[in-house]
Amino acid sequence: MEKISLLAPTIKELIASDKETLRKTLQDIHPADIAEVIPSLKEQQQLELFLLLEKNKAREVFEKLDEEEEILLLEHLDKNKSIQLLKHMAPDEKADLFEELPKDLVNKLLRLMAPEKREELKQLLAYPEDTAGAIMTTEYVALPSYLTTSETLDKIREIAPRKETIYFVYIIDSADRLKGFVSLKNIVLSDKNKKLKEIMKTNVISVNTRDDQEEVAHIIQKYDLLVIPVVDSKNTLKGIITVDDIMDVVEKENTEDIYKMASIENLEENYFDTSFVTLAKKRGLWLAILLFTYTISTSLLRHYSPTIEMLVALAYFIPMLTGSGGNAGTQTSTLIIRGLAIGEIKFNQILKILRREIPMGLILGLLLGSLGYIRAMIMQRDPTLSIIVGIALVFTIIAATLTGSLLPLILRKLKLDPAIATGPFLTTIVDVTALIIYFEIARFLLAV
Amino acid sequence: MEKISLLAPTIKELIASDKETLRKTLQDIHPADIAEVIPSLKEQQQLELFLLLEKNKAREVFEKLDEEEEILLLEHLDKNKSIQLLKHMAPDEKADLFEELPKDLVNKLLRLMAPEKREELKQLLAYPEDTAGAIMTTEYVALPSYLTTSETLDKIREIAPRKETIYFVYIIDSADRLKGFVSLKNIVLSDKNKKLKEIMKTNVISVNTRDDQEEVAHIIQKYDLLVIPVVDSKNTLKGIITVDDIMDVVEKENTEDIYKMASIENLEENYFDTSFVTLAKKRGLWLAILLFTYTISTSLLRHYSPTIEMLVALAYFIPMLTGSGGNAGTQTSTLIIRGLAIGEIKFNQILKILRREIPMGLILGLLLGSLGYIRAMIMQRDPTLSIIVGIALVFTIIAATLTGSLLPLILRKLKLDPAIATGPFLTTIVDVTALIIYFEIARFLLAV
Repeated sequence: MEKISLLAPTIKELIASDKETLRKTLQDIHPADIAEVIPSLKEQQQLELFLLLEKNKAREVFEKLDEEEEILLLEHLDKNKSIQLLKHMAPDEKADLFEELPKDLVNKLLRLMAPEKREELKQLLAYPEDTAGAIMTTEYVALPSYLTTSETLDKIREIAPRKETIYFVYIIDSADRLKGFVSLKNIVLSDKNKKLKEIMKTNVISVNTRDDQEEVAHIIQKYDLLVIPVVDSKNTLKGIITVDDIMDVVEKENTEDIYKMASIENLEENYFDTSFVTLAKKRGLWLAILLFTYTISTSLLRHYSPTIEMLVALAYFIPMLTGSGGNAGTQTSTLIIRGLAIGEIKFNQILKILRREIPMGLILGLLLGSLGYIRAMIMQRDPTLSIIVGIALVFTIIAATLTGSLLPLILRKLKLDPAIATGPFLTTIVDVTALIIYFEIARFLLAV
Repeated sequence: MEKISLLAPTIKELIASDKETLRKTLQDIHPADIAEVIPSLKEQQQLELFLLLEKNKAREVFEKLDEEEEILLLEHLDKNKSIQLLKHMAPDEKADLFEELPKDLVNKLLRLMAPEKREELKQLLAYPEDTAGAIMTTEYVALPSYLTTSETLDKIREIAPRKETIYFVYIIDSADRLKGFVSLKNIVLSDKNKKLKEIMKTNVISVNTRDDQEEVAHIIQKYDLLVIPVVDSKNTLKGIITVDDIMDVVEKENTEDIYKMASIENLEENYFDTSFVTLAKKRGLWLAILLFTYTISTSLLRHYSPTIEMLVALAYFIPMLTGSGGNAGTQTSTLIIRGLAIGEIKFNQILKILRREIPMGLILGLLLGSLGYIRAMIMQRDPTLSIIVGIALVFTIIAATLTGSLLPLILRKLKLDPAIATGPFLTTIVDVTALIIYFEIARFLLAV
């Protein structure tokens, strides 16, 4: 991969010094590699580079770019070049791009397109974001079941260049309803005169246009599919989704989940693709909400201030107590949230989870309680204080583990997103229980 | 998907009451669905179910199971049935299973295999875990370049049933060195008498047997591949990796990363697949390490106890201060860690990151500082205290944001895993700076 990182400086130099060599060099470079270099070029360099690319290569590179860069290029390339780029772009990629474009530019571009293509694109744009309909492509091979395999091969030869994949042929009836499929493998392996209806598989795994893309990813993964057909509620074939598009979905969804767990909501883009203002707003909002949750622990501490005044050393262990509770709770909640996300854990397994997490909390609580006790003894040599710290840790860890396992399940049941909502609730519940347990034990033991 | 959840109870009932109906029902159910039901069955039921499956279906279901269940079945099925299952299992799946089996069982099973298959398997087992060699399969189609497309199709027809994919034909020379590839699409579309060497692509993207599986996933994703060939250092073709196996790798790696960020180290399995003891050990170890890091803040608080005694209300805001710092730091570090994991962020972009994160820290700091000031004023009506809380929050958030951006990059540079190592360091650094800033400002302002 070292080669790739050398590509950018080389290209920058050649743009300035030797365009002809660059043109030839670019022919041997994979479109994905060229697309990777583009964001690091200046606007003018990007345009010059694009004009050096051969037509098909230009389209392939263009499809690989982020929407922001695509828009930038469209705004600066001349009209003919823009149309050329868009004309042969895959319908699903085109729909993704158009969703991000300003309304007037969309209308202008739509008017430049052939009526048939325009209708197709408008339909794709009508599907809600993140559904199977929005990510599918309409470039599939669909044929009637009465064709023979050799007729099918002739047909495939004719239409193949325009299709995203020809490895699966979908069988439809006269009303475009999905009846079955045949893999190219079976077509090649079968007798020439066999009809598709004789070799087709009728047990088709398909998704609905309105299904969530995450659901589609689960199904593709579970059944090891390369392509999945997309149908509407009447079982009419509407499109296909290929596994390479699903790989991108999986990565995006994972990134989003990871961000959510760190209290950054609904950030679908990567780090550098997100604008500073968007990021500042999303982060600031959640930090403010979380800050607000701490007001409860602040009030609790004021409530217990007579106890603190009696023994100031109690205050020393507050970060250890709330921090350890938070860590134990986050460990559990992360296990549960991830299990829910990949479909391993379901709500009705709540008892099975509790049967694990209650003993787990007990063991971890006893471990941390003992360590906390030893730590307090070494530091303060005060047996009462050390007992208070130790016992409080035991109960805090148990409470945190329980909260961490139940909270995500309850939030999911309430149709809230556990990945984003667990954090603030967990912090608050753990802090509050930790402080109450700590100071109540302290009040009890110090009053004796 | 509702259908699936009804499957388990139906199967359980039929095992007890009507095996013949179950045998017929199973024929129409996808192996992946049957495999999903198996873990919820009792051992005896699992065995009975397996004996009802037709030979090929049994193998397909078996391949879909987790290694633990595979081992359980192998231990209980009779010898003939076990051999039958293993005989036609894909080499990569077989290698995965054998890695988990006890040594004597491996030797026993190896002895039962045909010498050729045994050698193949031994070679696969020799590749280190998580490398391309360990996850590849040896069931590819490799042919010499002098064949015509029609000869190739004949050849494919002959060997297809034994191969994982026939959609790509790899071209090798007499020493098995990888020279190019042809897609089945191009074979079908080309003239019958064209030789492979005329239509093959020589610019092959391949990986080395020793490459990490995560690297393989990046490459497959970047170039939208369905299959990638695996070669050794002499460019000899050793195997192929298909995209469906990579989907599993991606999910596993993501799960692992998410767990690591919640301080659960190197847990490769899903929640229920991990034994209680393993989980308790991994969680306990990290909680203990994290508890130890809090001893620094505990000592700091003792150091500042005269200041706390002067104004006990200072203690009320400690959880808010360290908590908010932790949240802001985690937000930043998560963005950076994820960016590093998906290859978006590289170490040399450190300046670009700082140019974003320094103003970000400033804005978020001012926001939280103002909110903290207001909160303290409302609660305590003490302007000095409120100023202390506000200013300390501003600096804590700035420090946390900076630490969150630099720490993962530095750890990566030191060849440490940022996903697991950032947490404890971040907590410690943020807590320490927050407390020092807070109490130093307090000492200064209260002394006036």
